[in-house]
Amino acid sequence: MSSQSLYDEYTRVMQEVADIRYAAAVLQWDQETYLPPRGAEMRGRQLATLSELAHTRFTSEAMGNLLDALSAAGGLNPEQQANIALSRYDYDKNRKLPPAFVRQTSEAVNASFHAWIEARKQNSFAIFEQPLARIIALKQQEADLLGYTTHPYDALMNDYDRGLTVATCDSLFTALKPQLLGLLGQIREKNQIDDSILYQHCDRDAQWKFGLELLKRMGFDTDAGRQDISEHPFTTSFNSRDVRVTTRINETDFANMTWSCIHEGGHALYEQGLPYGAYGLPLGEACSYSMHESQSRLWENNIGRALPFWQHNFSLVQTFFPEQLGGITVEQFYKVINKVQPGLIRTEADELTYHFHIMIRYGIEKQLIDGTLSAKDIPACWNDCYQQYLGVTVPDDRQGCLQDVHWSHGSFGYFPTYSIGSLYAAQLYAALRAENASVEEEIARGNNHRLLEWLRQHIHQYGRLHTSEALCTLATGKPLDSAYFIDYATKKYNNVYL
Amino acid sequence: MSSQSLYDEYTRVMQEVADIRYAAAVLQWDQETYLPPRGAEMRGRQLATLSELAHTRFTSEAMGNLLDALSAAGGLNPEQQANIALSRYDYDKNRKLPPAFVRQTSEAVNASFHAWIEARKQNSFAIFEQPLARIIALKQQEADLLGYTTHPYDALMNDYDRGLTVATCDSLFTALKPQLLGLLGQIREKNQIDDSILYQHCDRDAQWKFGLELLKRMGFDTDAGRQDISEHPFTTSFNSRDVRVTTRINETDFANMTWSCIHEGGHALYEQGLPYGAYGLPLGEACSYSMHESQSRLWENNIGRALPFWQHNFSLVQTFFPEQLGGITVEQFYKVINKVQPGLIRTEADELTYHFHIMIRYGIEKQLIDGTLSAKDIPACWNDCYQQYLGVTVPDDRQGCLQDVHWSHGSFGYFPTYSIGSLYAAQLYAALRAENASVEEEIARGNNHRLLEWLRQHIHQYGRLHTSEALCTLATGKPLDSAYFIDYATKKYNNVYL
Repeated sequence: MSSQSLYDEYTRVMQEVADIRYAAAVLQWDQETYLPPRGAEMRGRQLATLSELAHTRFTSEAMGNLLDALSAAGGLNPEQQANIALSRYDYDKNRKLPPAFVRQTSEAVNASFHAWIEARKQNSFAIFEQPLARIIALKQQEADLLGYTTHPYDALMNDYDRGLTVATCDSLFTALKPQLLGLLGQIREKNQIDDSILYQHCDRDAQWKFGLELLKRMGFDTDAGRQDISEHPFTTSFNSRDVRVTTRINETDFANMTWSCIHEGGHALYEQGLPYGAYGLPLGEACSYSMHESQSRLWENNIGRALPFWQHNFSLVQTFFPEQLGGITVEQFYKVINKVQPGLIRTEADELTYHFHIMIRYGIEKQLIDGTLSAKDIPACWNDCYQQYLGVTVPDDRQGCLQDVHWSHGSFGYFPTYSIGSLYAAQLYAALRAENASVEEEIARGNNHRLLEWLRQHIHQYGRLHTSEALCTLATGKPLDSAYFIDYATKKYNNVYL
Repeated sequence: MSSQSLYDEYTRVMQEVADIRYAAAVLQWDQETYLPPRGAEMRGRQLATLSELAHTRFTSEAMGNLLDALSAAGGLNPEQQANIALSRYDYDKNRKLPPAFVRQTSEAVNASFHAWIEARKQNSFAIFEQPLARIIALKQQEADLLGYTTHPYDALMNDYDRGLTVATCDSLFTALKPQLLGLLGQIREKNQIDDSILYQHCDRDAQWKFGLELLKRMGFDTDAGRQDISEHPFTTSFNSRDVRVTTRINETDFANMTWSCIHEGGHALYEQGLPYGAYGLPLGEACSYSMHESQSRLWENNIGRALPFWQHNFSLVQTFFPEQLGGITVEQFYKVINKVQPGLIRTEADELTYHFHIMIRYGIEKQLIDGTLSAKDIPACWNDCYQQYLGVTVPDDRQGCLQDVHWSHGSFGYFPTYSIGSLYAAQLYAALRAENASVEEEIARGNNHRLLEWLRQHIHQYGRLHTSEALCTLATGKPLDSAYFIDYATKKYNNVYL
């Protein structure tokens, strides 16, 4: 077979696997948005069947032989070579986990997820402890199966950001932490901002329409995507011309919907910017969870909590919510939406204290995986850290170490990508501004074109071609450096807290 | 292997195939309700992949061997035997169509569907003629591949109602036609009903809420299903606890939404009544298209256009639409919703003239398949028939032989099930009333319990265990007889047209 016929066969199989995976994604989207309650049981088995089908097909001997033949064949162009190399990497990684192990993990996750729900209901970590310990043991085993050079946690982080290591995270967080503490200390000395204006009653329907209009103004193509309601906001994609975001609406928390919309909008613009022609192939997929988070946070914070964006869009806020927000200026609005307040809950944190929530989880996860911390010791460790980093006392486990679903899902190594994503966002935004001196003036006039084009050109178009680290260097000229975030945050909060 | 292990393996494979088929159904539902326009292309290929997967898995040699082994094994209970026999029938039927033929048909359908769209747009049958001729040729070939005793059209009707034959249809329609013509003649001599009251402006949102409330009152379980909006109303099911109906709303046609809701509600109640435990197996599926249509039409017409139902529910109409319908009595409403008026469009026809629309299509299809009529002669034949049966002159093909999508889809043999379904509905309803003298009094008090229970017990619970014909005999004591419909219609229209 010629290398082109081999490559065509590879594309065919990959796109078939993608069809199955994306069909599963449609079923998941439906599960979170429209599924009637009694349909949940069979939906579970339908999803399991599709996942297993996609996995079996991708990890088949035939696929291995095809990849071998393609490596040997030569005559492929650089893009094709990149796809093959990335598929090879995925294939080898998937093959390292024996089917029995995958099944055990899946069963353990199911048990621990239900234990977590129950533990939260009863506000008792003890209920979650044993199932979590089982997940941790399996994750340690997974790290061993996947292999690592330095730290077992590296093997797990790889799933979310290929090449991200404990060494890198430690170095970034070590640099970040004292600077953040310093900034937080300065803010504490200033008069606190009163943001109660954001918690007035805002009509559900008006919030929905406002959020959707914001998405459109960001550049979200509603002919190639849509927004729906779900309990927890998320973005999913079935190809770059069918990208779906969800939001939730709390009538006494206008901010929650607004920045959730902008955040998911950032994810969605990334997905809509991926190359449509590479459907089903690695180059048609996003780079990493970290880079994905860089896009959502760049929009949410660097753009969406900055003055220029609201100089154009605040009139929209006032049109939709004249009684609630008609009486303040955009400058006052800008301050109110940037209030810094240490708190207990990660998802409600401001963009400064947010990093502490992540550093705490990162520290705990690392120790759980290398065995220096046991499941039973999590609550004490958690509560100490919150006192030490944020000066807040954790009243109970529900508002403490039981607040996030991730561990019950077995998602160890995921949390760091939230902070890393913010750091990438700051660095990318700095590069973008350096290259386009007038970009903020344009944004202030409602023109996001240059901004979006820069992201499309420097990030979106590449798909998975580069690792996050390489892509950052390519886009900004330098590897990731937390100084950009600190610089951004210092300037912002000097403005906000006079 | 013991017969029980063989049966377990059979169940496992069947349920896996069902998972894939129902996943495809979710994707189709999404396509009709929420899919953003630019997502259509990839959705097409995702659906094609799932269909092929399900088909390949079900028609595999392994499945054939399993069915052989199960037939030989013995020791199965009657339900298990029935499932195996039905799967064997499906398997053999599917295997009779070579993959190349299935692909050719699928390609021809794709071409003819687009030609039909274009032909309708340009109001020109000529555009559709050649692609339709190709479909007809393939359908003739399909009939030969599937095999038949008497008429090739029998082989095609089998797909929609196993055992339904030209002999049966001819006999039913021959009995029906003069009676209907007589009834229609009598009505023509009476004063026509003015139903313009139904075409007043009724708010979209109020229509939506009213329709949903009707569904609930019928007994539709909204924890095991939901309603959405689509261009053409339909019912789909992903298991008996996730049954979805759609409706459409025209603000100046309250009746359209109302009886479409009730019609789809009838389909949905059937799906919700199928045995959940038989998921993926024949006994978990509906009996036939005819029997499905009997359920939708029984609710739409025998219940939903009768006085008792509205004696309870008309107050709901008046609550939602006080300005439009507050000023009439339920008796006046009953007349208005039963106006008989020969017309051009099948989907807008009253329940009496509806049968002529079907008989015309049935006659044409039968001749197209046995070769006594060519595609090019359809318009002339169609227009003659409409003049002769209904006394209406067809002004153009868009309002004539291009009005329905079915032929472009290759669905030959489907139309008769609409009329047959109505005939079953009348016969079932007569049996139900004979057994339950007070059922209409109960319905008039808003109590549908006995009605729904009768349908559950006599129809729904059996799944595909019996053919339509056998099920009818079991439920009513007699094979299908059009006299029940004529009797029902005569009584009704003697009431409506005094």
